[in-house]
Amino acid sequence: MKKWEEKLRQITPYVPGEQPDFPDMIKINTNENPYPPAPGVEKLLKEMDTKKLTLYPNPGAKLLVDELSKQYNIAPERIFVGVGSDDVLGMIFMTCFSSDKPILFPDITYSFYDVWADLFRVPYKRMPLDENFCIKKEDYLGENGGIVLANPNAPTSIAVGLDFIEDIVKNNQDSIVVVDEAYIDFGGESAFPLLEKYENLLVVQTFSKSRSMAGMRIGYAFGSERVISAIYAVRNSYNSYTMNYPSIVCGAEALKDVAYFKECTAKVIATRERMKKELAELGFSFPDSKTNFLFATHESVPAVELFEMLREKRIFVRYFKTPRIDNYLRITIGTDAQMDRVVEVLKEYLEKR
Amino acid sequence: MKKWEEKLRQITPYVPGEQPDFPDMIKINTNENPYPPAPGVEKLLKEMDTKKLTLYPNPGAKLLVDELSKQYNIAPERIFVGVGSDDVLGMIFMTCFSSDKPILFPDITYSFYDVWADLFRVPYKRMPLDENFCIKKEDYLGENGGIVLANPNAPTSIAVGLDFIEDIVKNNQDSIVVVDEAYIDFGGESAFPLLEKYENLLVVQTFSKSRSMAGMRIGYAFGSERVISAIYAVRNSYNSYTMNYPSIVCGAEALKDVAYFKECTAKVIATRERMKKELAELGFSFPDSKTNFLFATHESVPAVELFEMLREKRIFVRYFKTPRIDNYLRITIGTDAQMDRVVEVLKEYLEKR
Repeated sequence: MKKWEEKLRQITPYVPGEQPDFPDMIKINTNENPYPPAPGVEKLLKEMDTKKLTLYPNPGAKLLVDELSKQYNIAPERIFVGVGSDDVLGMIFMTCFSSDKPILFPDITYSFYDVWADLFRVPYKRMPLDENFCIKKEDYLGENGGIVLANPNAPTSIAVGLDFIEDIVKNNQDSIVVVDEAYIDFGGESAFPLLEKYENLLVVQTFSKSRSMAGMRIGYAFGSERVISAIYAVRNSYNSYTMNYPSIVCGAEALKDVAYFKECTAKVIATRERMKKELAELGFSFPDSKTNFLFATHESVPAVELFEMLREKRIFVRYFKTPRIDNYLRITIGTDAQMDRVVEVLKEYLEKR
Repeated sequence: MKKWEEKLRQITPYVPGEQPDFPDMIKINTNENPYPPAPGVEKLLKEMDTKKLTLYPNPGAKLLVDELSKQYNIAPERIFVGVGSDDVLGMIFMTCFSSDKPILFPDITYSFYDVWADLFRVPYKRMPLDENFCIKKEDYLGENGGIVLANPNAPTSIAVGLDFIEDIVKNNQDSIVVVDEAYIDFGGESAFPLLEKYENLLVVQTFSKSRSMAGMRIGYAFGSERVISAIYAVRNSYNSYTMNYPSIVCGAEALKDVAYFKECTAKVIATRERMKKELAELGFSFPDSKTNFLFATHESVPAVELFEMLREKRIFVRYFKTPRIDNYLRITIGTDAQMDRVVEVLKEYLEKR
């Protein structure tokens, strides 16, 4: 190793999930929304004055933050925005977990939490879910450096209620408690109302799932003014202008179309409920999903076999080669037509086998 | 202080520069380009298929990286892209300066270097420029944890030649040497040719100045495959999808229009050279700028007085209340019409005073 190489940060590369790109594929592997963004976004892009691109964007993404403030009825000073909820969560890890005590999160959850903890040298402890993939509340009541819970959890798709979250927040008023609500709009109960009572709570959401804008990279967090300003202090010391002009204006525009948002999430939920029945009939079981995906295991056929069979048919689902969940598939809810095709392919395969 | 507050990272908030927004203003305070992005960008936004926004963007921003590869004739594996050159430099600080020895940069330079060093707990030493604001080469020949040089330097506007940079890179083959070339397209000599010889060199550039796209947030670095892959390992452990879909496709499109790029930079350079004469006649002096700004001091009137006078006329220039440079104004080169107005206002004020 050369001397300059010794000065490089040694890190095990995190490999991002597969993003296949075939014209005829059914891509239900990364929980994207099958419906396009609100129609206003297209109109806005068509009419965009590119002269605006010559200028630095507003560092606080004011237009976007003001619209979030209006839609959610919360002060702009209590909103942080970032380049997807990954950026938001990464900044939260960098800002809020400066303690020697370990932060706590489940053993099966969003796979980035331990990656951020390693990157920012935050000690952590993974608390095992129970045998039904449920979070054990008592695990989160001891001393800690912070708590991160995805609700609904991923990839399990299981949601806990508001009382459950409140118990954890109430019993951890010496730490920051982060509730990562990437999938909340598909039927979960948001911790948002608790923000009025607890200064140490952060609620993180994203435009990537329910708002059909994964490609625009917009995430946001709600919290107390004190915590949000601390996150901005770190963010501004890294990059003062993270949100580009298109993401600011298109994000604000998408938020305005409440009817379209409700229509799309209702469609996804309806398709999901139908899929629960259809997959159960094929011998699958799964937790009661409150997300835009099902976390399914088959009574007799190994998940990896189904994963590979589907892949050959250009149907991409997610398979985790991870202890405890390596016999499950994470299947994103697509359009009805896409789901019909998935059921057809599975049925045909299972009958023949 | 509450107990959860003690767990927050204590950081002095970095305050981003002023972004005034008046319809009739002349905004020449943040070195933006007065000309719009390449016409292809507008066309592309008009025709953008918003269905693409539902999907996560390509994590490696392949379209953009491939176009950079083509235009600069360098392998794609040797290119890193980020959300403006601030993101690129921030990731470089996080990745490349993991040593106990101090990194070195000038005392007067881009004001973010010490902010990143503080954020990522990298020890650093500021090496004083000489009395003419020139970098003293001998300061960079001792042991160190890395070197960061802006060339041309900001806010001084002074460029050094390729031999100067090569001497520093050649004598520092145990460290990563970063050359921050945000302003290189306005007349400086890029260190790009040295990349063939030195694996420890990183050359950083941006779309914010010469490509008129500060609002799109695109920066990039060229380096050896080994260093670039180390930066991506850290980046992917923070946020796998930093570049949104519009920035990837519009960035690639802008790169293709070489003629427009040359035309715009030539216009800025011509206006700058004219301004050198006009400002000299008004009693200003300044280093020989190779950037899109002039770093000017007046023979009798204090910079702060001129700054405030211009501000009242809605002409925004940059003033740094910093030792050694607090009698200078940094004036971005705008259109000819904007510059005529600036000269007119200055002339009128200086004559009356």
